[in-house]
Amino acid sequence: MTIATALIRLETLFGDRFSATEAVRGHHGQNESYFPVTLPDAVVFPRNAQEVSAAVQICAAEGCPVVAWGVGTSLEGHALAFQGGVSMDMSGMDKVVAINAEDLDAVVQPGVTREALNTELRATGLFFPIDPGANATLGGMAATRASGTTAVRYGTMRDNVLALEAVLADGRIIRVGSRARKSSSGYDLKNLIVGSEGTLAIITELTLRLQGVPESITSARCPFESVEGAVAAVIETIQMGIPVARIEFLDPGAIAAFNAYAKMDMPVQPHLFLEFHGSEAGTKEQAEMFGAIAAEHGAGEFQWAATLEERNRLWAARHNGYYAMKAIAPHKRILTTDVCVPISRLAEALLTTMKDMEDSPIEGAVVGHVGDGNFHSTLLVDPDKPEELAEAKRLAHRMNELALQLGGTVTGEHGVGRGKLEYMEAEHGAAWDVMGEIKRALDPHGILNPGKVVRGN
Amino acid sequence: MTIATALIRLETLFGDRFSATEAVRGHHGQNESYFPVTLPDAVVFPRNAQEVSAAVQICAAEGCPVVAWGVGTSLEGHALAFQGGVSMDMSGMDKVVAINAEDLDAVVQPGVTREALNTELRATGLFFPIDPGANATLGGMAATRASGTTAVRYGTMRDNVLALEAVLADGRIIRVGSRARKSSSGYDLKNLIVGSEGTLAIITELTLRLQGVPESITSARCPFESVEGAVAAVIETIQMGIPVARIEFLDPGAIAAFNAYAKMDMPVQPHLFLEFHGSEAGTKEQAEMFGAIAAEHGAGEFQWAATLEERNRLWAARHNGYYAMKAIAPHKRILTTDVCVPISRLAEALLTTMKDMEDSPIEGAVVGHVGDGNFHSTLLVDPDKPEELAEAKRLAHRMNELALQLGGTVTGEHGVGRGKLEYMEAEHGAAWDVMGEIKRALDPHGILNPGKVVRGN
Repeated sequence: MTIATALIRLETLFGDRFSATEAVRGHHGQNESYFPVTLPDAVVFPRNAQEVSAAVQICAAEGCPVVAWGVGTSLEGHALAFQGGVSMDMSGMDKVVAINAEDLDAVVQPGVTREALNTELRATGLFFPIDPGANATLGGMAATRASGTTAVRYGTMRDNVLALEAVLADGRIIRVGSRARKSSSGYDLKNLIVGSEGTLAIITELTLRLQGVPESITSARCPFESVEGAVAAVIETIQMGIPVARIEFLDPGAIAAFNAYAKMDMPVQPHLFLEFHGSEAGTKEQAEMFGAIAAEHGAGEFQWAATLEERNRLWAARHNGYYAMKAIAPHKRILTTDVCVPISRLAEALLTTMKDMEDSPIEGAVVGHVGDGNFHSTLLVDPDKPEELAEAKRLAHRMNELALQLGGTVTGEHGVGRGKLEYMEAEHGAAWDVMGEIKRALDPHGILNPGKVVRGN
Repeated sequence: MTIATALIRLETLFGDRFSATEAVRGHHGQNESYFPVTLPDAVVFPRNAQEVSAAVQICAAEGCPVVAWGVGTSLEGHALAFQGGVSMDMSGMDKVVAINAEDLDAVVQPGVTREALNTELRATGLFFPIDPGANATLGGMAATRASGTTAVRYGTMRDNVLALEAVLADGRIIRVGSRARKSSSGYDLKNLIVGSEGTLAIITELTLRLQGVPESITSARCPFESVEGAVAAVIETIQMGIPVARIEFLDPGAIAAFNAYAKMDMPVQPHLFLEFHGSEAGTKEQAEMFGAIAAEHGAGEFQWAATLEERNRLWAARHNGYYAMKAIAPHKRILTTDVCVPISRLAEALLTTMKDMEDSPIEGAVVGHVGDGNFHSTLLVDPDKPEELAEAKRLAHRMNELALQLGGTVTGEHGVGRGKLEYMEAEHGAAWDVMGEIKRALDPHGILNPGKVVRGN
């Protein structure tokens, strides 16, 4: 019972869809964050749930870790095989199985990316709204309970995965949830698996909720005199129930990085970027209501984007923020924080964080899905200077502690992975033990993505 | 280690908040549905989580079943102590702990009813939208993942419970979820407990999402020439994304029952009842869009209700539907079905059900939260005629089988309890076993609400 035996058996099963070459292992040992390269022992490329099940059964029998891999855009080391074993690359399971336009849902394999799904949906008048920025796989997004800029209107993956098929640690294939819009039929295993980061099951199919493309979509950005003003405008917008589709904060550092990256000339001030979805009259009304609020809180001139092209240009500034930050110092890695607090505490959390960053030698910026109370600091770290990582972690630690004090969470949307593990006890107390009890009940040998989410896993 | 010993210890602990009188046991042995009266051995009335924990620890040590009780409005026998033991009456834990108006949330004890919460919220401009009809406790609503008429717009208890405190089978008190609007921090234990019907934990506190009272609320009812027309109008409304706050179907039987009960004179035809929430302009636009759809599908004259009093009268017809049906034959009990199907299959499910009921001697009516694909048949059963219960169960069985064939669920909002247990294997397959494995991991002695939800519990 060894990893070596598992690899031999997996090679027999997968043939040329098994690889232990340095190049393939290297690709699956990368991450977009600050974790060092960590190679799995081998990579397999399953084509269907039966193959996933067969592979997991081998790994269970041989005590070999199995770590699911999408496209590697996660930020907390989720997809790294820290204990060795097999990286299971789901990117080949990339079929859109069904589009049920009349029910506003679609069935997809986990390797479909969100952009690929939206391309496929183009002719239907429907779209999948969840937008974490990166073109992640939908399986990976479900596994980390991803969300992003549109969660303020459309919710997170929790709300938008209606059902799924998954392989458990003993190889059983289960289906949970249903295409019915609601159900009180037993324990909510669908939401137990969404966000479990591959530690309870490997997702092999997803049924996703779709939305009709709104009749009217308008976007805008506007600078504010102060961070306080921008945050006050956000809070008032949410409290008044204006159904904004996106409401994003960018600090002056993020604006400066993007001006450089995309050759734009936005004023280097705190900004809000917004999007309104609805009928023609509805978006006009929303925009007017928001405009009135913003004016009271020191907003400057609005830049409107009505055409698809203008909107894409506007949102590229937000979505490429991560890469714009990287461009400041291409050899550096990024440590990203991900706190989420009750909206009444947002100003306190944001201002404290920006002050901490000002007082630190670490370069960085702050961007946020502030309508949900969620924001990120992107902290640039030289991988050759351990003191920079230490300082960035010190800053992140202060933010995480503050978020917990304010009744929030250390991760609004990125997940726990390896990076947030140390905060789980402080955030959840005895409930973290319960997560471990569930893990041990469903994966007694701890083969599914070990070293993540739960204690002693 | 016996129930008798547990009772002695509980009486010592609870003093005069322990009762084994016939009257108190009888009250906690009742149900609003067709299950026979089933007395618990005793009833305790805890005042806080610590007392719940102490009681559960005694019951765990003595192997005594514990069944939580709210106000007894559940419909599948959830709160009945089928294996004896203690009924834990949560109605004394009825404090609204905090209203965080700026965060649009409230913290409540589980014995607060939804109407009591909304009364408390009256001065804040906020409301709690979930409305199952009955004035249930919020703890009971969370435990059964309740929803009702407004779920089409505001979601179910799954979406509206942000966090909760609960006592596990070994007496541990845990807190799950947070006041942050989203989180990717570990397994979703909050949603594992919501809908677990008291079989995994007893809820001792809830943090609930609130909504701003809309600027404008308008309601309407309108008759349709045919069931097909009414359903087609619903499907088109949902597919077009009109954000209706309620969209309810009542069949001619339900209309007739209500005409008799409330001395109204609605035309005895299929009806839709609707409500629109939004700005003045928004509700007007929604109503116009719906009006155009309805006109294409054989709608008759709309009756509008704009004032609060008119709206209350209109919705009383829907919400008292259960009691109106009972009034037809006061000595009869009601068996209520609760299927929910993908909306594209709604017409098939509804028409097949109505045909089955027409062909049966059992009296009944059909009402539904059709915007979600969820509807109920209320079947009148004489408790002294076992053949009536058998025939009602035969009808219900056909509906449940059909719902599963159509990709739906046997329970959209009432829960499993005892009544839907026999369908769990057919609906969930191997996933039902997984529910049992979680149950055994968290409640190894099976003391929490035994005989419900999972196999062999």
